[in-house]
Amino acid sequence: MKIALAQLNYHIGNFESNTNKIIDHIRKARENGADLVVFAELCVSGYPSRDFLEFDEFIDLCEASAQKIAEECTDIACIIGLPTPNDKPEGKELNNTAYFIENGEVKARAHKALLPNYDIFDEYRYFEPSTEFSCIEFKGHRIALTICEDLWNTIENPLYITRPMDILIEEEPDVMINIAASPFAYNHDEERIGILSDNANRYGLPLFYVNNVGAQTELIFDGGSLVFDNTGRMVDEMPYFEEAMAYYDLDKQGNVSFAHPSTMRKARQSDIEQIHSAILVGIRDYFYKSGFKQAILGLSGGIDSAVVCALAAEALGAENVMAVLLPSRFSSDHSIKDAEDLVKNLGCMHTTIPIKSVTEAFEHILEPQFKGLPFNIAEENIQSRSRAVLLMAMCNKFGYILLNTSNKSEAAVGYGTLYGDMCGGISVIGDVYKTQVFELARHINRNGEIIPENSIVKPPSAELRPNQKDTDSLPEYEILDQILAEYIEGRSSSAAIIRMGFDEKTVRRVIKLTNLAEHKRYQTPPILRVSPKAFGMGRRMPIVGKYLS
Amino acid sequence: MKIALAQLNYHIGNFESNTNKIIDHIRKARENGADLVVFAELCVSGYPSRDFLEFDEFIDLCEASAQKIAEECTDIACIIGLPTPNDKPEGKELNNTAYFIENGEVKARAHKALLPNYDIFDEYRYFEPSTEFSCIEFKGHRIALTICEDLWNTIENPLYITRPMDILIEEEPDVMINIAASPFAYNHDEERIGILSDNANRYGLPLFYVNNVGAQTELIFDGGSLVFDNTGRMVDEMPYFEEAMAYYDLDKQGNVSFAHPSTMRKARQSDIEQIHSAILVGIRDYFYKSGFKQAILGLSGGIDSAVVCALAAEALGAENVMAVLLPSRFSSDHSIKDAEDLVKNLGCMHTTIPIKSVTEAFEHILEPQFKGLPFNIAEENIQSRSRAVLLMAMCNKFGYILLNTSNKSEAAVGYGTLYGDMCGGISVIGDVYKTQVFELARHINRNGEIIPENSIVKPPSAELRPNQKDTDSLPEYEILDQILAEYIEGRSSSAAIIRMGFDEKTVRRVIKLTNLAEHKRYQTPPILRVSPKAFGMGRRMPIVGKYLS
Repeated sequence: MKIALAQLNYHIGNFESNTNKIIDHIRKARENGADLVVFAELCVSGYPSRDFLEFDEFIDLCEASAQKIAEECTDIACIIGLPTPNDKPEGKELNNTAYFIENGEVKARAHKALLPNYDIFDEYRYFEPSTEFSCIEFKGHRIALTICEDLWNTIENPLYITRPMDILIEEEPDVMINIAASPFAYNHDEERIGILSDNANRYGLPLFYVNNVGAQTELIFDGGSLVFDNTGRMVDEMPYFEEAMAYYDLDKQGNVSFAHPSTMRKARQSDIEQIHSAILVGIRDYFYKSGFKQAILGLSGGIDSAVVCALAAEALGAENVMAVLLPSRFSSDHSIKDAEDLVKNLGCMHTTIPIKSVTEAFEHILEPQFKGLPFNIAEENIQSRSRAVLLMAMCNKFGYILLNTSNKSEAAVGYGTLYGDMCGGISVIGDVYKTQVFELARHINRNGEIIPENSIVKPPSAELRPNQKDTDSLPEYEILDQILAEYIEGRSSSAAIIRMGFDEKTVRRVIKLTNLAEHKRYQTPPILRVSPKAFGMGRRMPIVGKYLS
Repeated sequence: MKIALAQLNYHIGNFESNTNKIIDHIRKARENGADLVVFAELCVSGYPSRDFLEFDEFIDLCEASAQKIAEECTDIACIIGLPTPNDKPEGKELNNTAYFIENGEVKARAHKALLPNYDIFDEYRYFEPSTEFSCIEFKGHRIALTICEDLWNTIENPLYITRPMDILIEEEPDVMINIAASPFAYNHDEERIGILSDNANRYGLPLFYVNNVGAQTELIFDGGSLVFDNTGRMVDEMPYFEEAMAYYDLDKQGNVSFAHPSTMRKARQSDIEQIHSAILVGIRDYFYKSGFKQAILGLSGGIDSAVVCALAAEALGAENVMAVLLPSRFSSDHSIKDAEDLVKNLGCMHTTIPIKSVTEAFEHILEPQFKGLPFNIAEENIQSRSRAVLLMAMCNKFGYILLNTSNKSEAAVGYGTLYGDMCGGISVIGDVYKTQVFELARHINRNGEIIPENSIVKPPSAELRPNQKDTDSLPEYEILDQILAEYIEGRSSSAAIIRMGFDEKTVRRVIKLTNLAEHKRYQTPPILRVSPKAFGMGRRMPIVGKYLS
């Protein structure tokens, strides 16, 4: 049996585009002699379709697309994923389903049993878990078809009380196929390979695994579809962060072979290399799928906006990026020069709008209110917010999308101005700690200076008052980021973090700042997720709580 | 057996305050001769504690509080709710648990089996459902203790495949106790009474039901704890929107009696009366629980900001509300007069900051960019955003919280300026359609004019360009709100809404506008939830989707 794996980039709710893409790949696979072509989990609707799933009309459109796809399946079979109505009277209204289509008809249905409902996942919000499982006969093979999480109930840390393959294995299948929507995090590829390899080895079956690729707003899918032999050895690894199709021969003894050059990585990419690739996909798909072409951002001369500008230029083309310098009376000469150097290196559009006249207008008009009270955070924020008004005015006049340039460290502790530098359509590096932003800058400069060296080496400053430095209000980023990673990704207790050797007062202050900034993060743009725990849909905190705050 | 029901307002993660409040009520109940005092679901931690539940330290603090509470339980038993570690190796790490405490010790534990995971609920994110049930013996009674949703698997629309009471009833209990955290929506009280009455009737048992009361950021709990006899007849109804404790005698035959005056409502409050009460609680608790006292808002002379100002003055005291008039060159004289009349009627703080000089400064500084392009949404938004900068500067200088004044109709179709009038710490009427805002204004004026009549009767306008009216860009609100309610609350398909008789083009446009405004709503403040489907945590939509958009 010749199996094609189609690793494609879908668009949530764009049935026309998704269906056409699937049909094109069915045709191509048939031309190349495939018996079966496998698409990813919920490919028909896009993943995650979220509360669109609560609309009958949306579900009807999924079924209509599946019927169109089925009509294409002559002389070739295919596996697609879509939400379908639960045909039992009890339970949630839908199942997360895989269709096995042959001879123009849906020959078998497999429903997902293990429904992830943690971090960014909400599947039990919509789907009833399956309790019945059976293999699919096709061309002398017996296929155990499962969906993503169905293979993830690990022995060491079982999150679920059942394991679908334990039931399917009793029917003596000779191959496993798993269709998935497994989002990227910089540490996820190794975990995924490990768990799938364990499955192939435990059940003694070859395993074909097809993942989604591309970004859906903040969620990035990295592809990297996988093939294992029946000992758990990885046989092939499809490309990361791009669409691809690959063909494999499976014989009756369970041996897997293929004719094309393997795309298996010689070595794993570093975390920063992966983050870099992921962010480019995230930016590109955000613009492409929302129908925009051009980005705008404020350039301060600091490292964060420099890195975002370089990433945007790489993702969208420098000609589609407008960098705006918005100097105030507190902007240092070197900041302006650093920003100008970056613009020169990138060749992007740029302009300068000094904000002095507008901040003065605000301060003047507020004089009767402020009655000579000393300069404080109110005046600092007026600067940041005046910049946002100007950038948004440019968006409104010319159709740009504003890129947010906040990093994860400042988003954590609330070191940013709501409706000021926290604005934007999408946050590019909001899941990248400041220390990682430095690494990313070095990586972007790997073949020569793009980010000016001075932006990397100078002490970070918001430049909202004279001689301000980030370290006036925050611990050194080396310390801050370690504490934050323990608290946010590690979910460690304050006591545990203190036991690691960090200063108690600092730990308590950082956690308190983080918890108190929840109201700010609630109103920030979606953040491209690159870590296992990003701010946004995967981290749901009370706002008016009182815990370590 | 004398049972006390304690309907209290908890604060998420505020263990000291919650524990002290529970202990105070145990003492009071004991003084009044109660054998058992019943508190609400997850009262120890507050509900919903969301991802705080993923921190071991948080769970440890819950258990420590429970032990403190247990020490108080001499000569009286109590039922409290808290998250506890799942002691089975498989499944989620926690259970949603009720402790039955007697003689200073936890005598029995009941875990919740039916975990709501729809709308605003995320319980399967944290909790493993219970599969074992047994009754609790106390003072010659056999108590079937369940938690909230455990009684909600209706016969007509079973969302779950099990029903805990069907198992418990086999042990022949003589009373049901249910502890709950059932959030307010204006149509929820009748549904709740109906479902609980059905349970009492079906199982032929008296039922004591204790709900949470008070607001947790956007979620409002309305109390209204209930007592039913074994035929399903409602025996008593505790007050809505306030803390209360009530005492009941239960005899061996299952008869319920009580000595205090019944607080049962003579008639159900109207939707608008309930919304009014709920919003007052929402505002009060948002300020009290976040440690703020004073609110600020921009007053336009229109009905939305007038209603919000009146509600804030009622909730916080007029002396704690600062109304700011921010007229532009497009503000009409009657708008300024209407705003001034309102301020006079309320007696709140007020000031006027004309925005002409700052908008002119913005327009002047943007001249080289805009190059004489015609006035459009860019200049309109500059006005709205300049107002936000001024209001936030007042917040930063004086410690106010900015109230957002957007209504649900405009939040739906995106008729508002991001980082402009969509700013605020909390959205007061973001779950109230414009036509309901008019009703609310009439209700506020029920004993005499507070909202100036002219603010109610004049055609709504954003006043961002000359002679602008909302109906220039939107259908009449009577039509718009009906379509929106069908789409948002009703989750009706576009085809179904058109079949109801609405103009097809209007329906498609309204739904398209609603879906396209998702990116704006993502960045708006939490919205006090008063309907069964509010924007925010209970409605999770893709941003970069392509569905009916």
